[in-house]
Amino acid sequence: MSGTSNALAIDGRRFQRRLAELAAVGAIEGTEGCARLALTDEDRHGRELVVTWMRDLGLHVSVDGVGNVVGVLGADTVAGAVLTGSHIDTVATGGRFDGNLGVLAGLEVLETVIDRGVDTGRPLAVGFFTNEEGSRFAPDMLGSLVYAGGLQLEDALDIVAIDGAVLGDELARIGFRGAAPVPGPVPHAFVEYHIEQGPVLEREEIDVGAVIGVQGISWTRFAFTGQSNHAGTTPMSYRRDAGYVAMRVAAFVRELVAEVGPPQVGTVGRIELHPNLVNVVAATATITVDVRNTDDDVLRSVEERIARFVADVAGGEGVSVEAETLARFAPVAFDDRVIDLVEVVAKELGNTTMRLPAGAGHDAQMLARVCPAGMIFVPSVHGISHNPAEHTDPADIEAGANVLLHTMLRLAATDFGDHR
Amino acid sequence: MSGTSNALAIDGRRFQRRLAELAAVGAIEGTEGCARLALTDEDRHGRELVVTWMRDLGLHVSVDGVGNVVGVLGADTVAGAVLTGSHIDTVATGGRFDGNLGVLAGLEVLETVIDRGVDTGRPLAVGFFTNEEGSRFAPDMLGSLVYAGGLQLEDALDIVAIDGAVLGDELARIGFRGAAPVPGPVPHAFVEYHIEQGPVLEREEIDVGAVIGVQGISWTRFAFTGQSNHAGTTPMSYRRDAGYVAMRVAAFVRELVAEVGPPQVGTVGRIELHPNLVNVVAATATITVDVRNTDDDVLRSVEERIARFVADVAGGEGVSVEAETLARFAPVAFDDRVIDLVEVVAKELGNTTMRLPAGAGHDAQMLARVCPAGMIFVPSVHGISHNPAEHTDPADIEAGANVLLHTMLRLAATDFGDHR
Repeated sequence: MSGTSNALAIDGRRFQRRLAELAAVGAIEGTEGCARLALTDEDRHGRELVVTWMRDLGLHVSVDGVGNVVGVLGADTVAGAVLTGSHIDTVATGGRFDGNLGVLAGLEVLETVIDRGVDTGRPLAVGFFTNEEGSRFAPDMLGSLVYAGGLQLEDALDIVAIDGAVLGDELARIGFRGAAPVPGPVPHAFVEYHIEQGPVLEREEIDVGAVIGVQGISWTRFAFTGQSNHAGTTPMSYRRDAGYVAMRVAAFVRELVAEVGPPQVGTVGRIELHPNLVNVVAATATITVDVRNTDDDVLRSVEERIARFVADVAGGEGVSVEAETLARFAPVAFDDRVIDLVEVVAKELGNTTMRLPAGAGHDAQMLARVCPAGMIFVPSVHGISHNPAEHTDPADIEAGANVLLHTMLRLAATDFGDHR
Repeated sequence: MSGTSNALAIDGRRFQRRLAELAAVGAIEGTEGCARLALTDEDRHGRELVVTWMRDLGLHVSVDGVGNVVGVLGADTVAGAVLTGSHIDTVATGGRFDGNLGVLAGLEVLETVIDRGVDTGRPLAVGFFTNEEGSRFAPDMLGSLVYAGGLQLEDALDIVAIDGAVLGDELARIGFRGAAPVPGPVPHAFVEYHIEQGPVLEREEIDVGAVIGVQGISWTRFAFTGQSNHAGTTPMSYRRDAGYVAMRVAAFVRELVAEVGPPQVGTVGRIELHPNLVNVVAATATITVDVRNTDDDVLRSVEERIARFVADVAGGEGVSVEAETLARFAPVAFDDRVIDLVEVVAKELGNTTMRLPAGAGHDAQMLARVCPAGMIFVPSVHGISHNPAEHTDPADIEAGANVLLHTMLRLAATDFGDHR
């Protein structure tokens, strides 16, 4: 990295001011958090604020058919530009960093480049994608999925929110049903800056993470049906205890995950028994099993072993099972060249760094379908996210934004040859 | 049994008519079931109907301070009489047999004795005890507990219902705060006729059960506190998963019960996770553990082993535990002479019979504190109880009532010597 590049840095205070201004839109009183569910009035006000900032910087702003917004510096299209960005929608009781950080860091990078008159070689761009959280409309990462051609616009517009609203109507209502075509123009590369939303960087005392990809995610709901019986008068040999089967499966998930070892994770976070009474054998039980791995073969074998165990223990108890796949995403591997670049830049700027997978979904995994893509993580205090208490130290925020700045400049100077 | 005794039998159709008439009070529309929670208007109307029947038979009726009602034939006190009875309160969605069967069978026995002019030697009596179910006031078996001197009247009268009403006020309101003293007069013996409320007699194709006692009951609530974390971003080694600990304990309860063997039973029928979401490691979890055995030493060892396991698995996960005893009753053994008599009489009358423990609590366990006591069970179809679908075949009902009749006559002729 040249001396000039090293001296080039974003304005940390300006960045924090924008974070605070955006966080004030839909702020949850008495907390640092935000409630800006996708395509609500709060989301509209947040979008208008960010678009105003884009226009103030002289960016070429376009809005596509599903409400994704991009602002390009030095061109009128994202095609061939180095794109960064994330999302500004939040969960119902969210923090101020998840998504917002990446969008505002992109603005900060572009303002820095403009202020310093840097010749970037290629256009740079920043965008935000519609409904990343999936809290109001399913699926999550909807805007970037449509951008990357994974979902047809007509199908996306028909999606009904948990509150009954239709996505296309809501886009029109808030003035963000744009004319730019989807799938969107293919960028030269995409890099997303995001909080980790997990505890690893903090625990390992690492400043910046180079994200190697997104874990594959498998969510299954198992519904067990046995027979309700009196807990005192029914000998064990007569029981068909749906609750026992469900809880035994939960215990097995942990045993299996321990046997497979990291990075395998597994969680039974939800259970419902009926009638859920101290002295009644449960007639029905439902659990969800969330298992994730960066290796799809391992993940598939974990799914299969859980399914076999479920069949065995339910069969032994005389309990019937229905399994429903709630979500299944294959792992996404980011582009090695982007991962390497993030790591090199982070080190050159004096940060401690490590490679790690993303445990949650991100827009970058959709963009990875169409161009070289990667992500930059900074630590989340106590790993807390999707919570008004979500926090990242200002020094970490600034460090990550400088890694984004120099990664984007290096990406602009990199020839990737043909896109995959 | 003499030929005369064998010829003596209750009137099955009259008994069924009374069962139907009482079941009409608080009937749950569209079902065979009843809702007569203790000391409600429905309970009042049920009580008034039974008292009317008692008076029609010329019984000496008395109501004590906690609303227990007894009708004595051939004397003005229960002291020295052979007492039978049960309760007429029901759970919120109850059946027509639980409790009611035993009270109306007692009336039927007394009417038969009167009609046939049988010289019983000792007075016979039938009663019903207040709030056996415990659905409105805690504890259950409250009336018989007070009758047997296990709870002071003043304390009982102060008990507040789940709906906020005070027991003493409700007794007065419905006209059943009587003048008869508690603890009540000590009967010569007590025998209670009841449906099994479990599946054993039906499965084993047995007509009449001779109840050997009531299982000891131990209810514990374990509340676990860990830490809420993202199911994707939190490596297993960082987790403090309260939900996992709770469900692992539930699986252990089953393992332990299988190891101990019958008659040990164990149930985790209730669990609550928070936040109970597919992709969030549970911050808190609560389970109830219900374990029962007829042997108090075994039951105590089961409780201790569960407590140790809870401490071990919670400690290993960094999860804190609070344990609360919700209920703990030692097992009750009925009087061998009464058990033998029930068995002998049942066989003499041509029934198949077996000895078995009661899995649930009954008024007889309170009376067992003061006089020789026992119980007669008849089969519950599919073991269903505390449910409008509760059912027992009329032939079984009649057979059990004839066992009650002849057991009471034999008890009247038995000299037990000094009470225990």
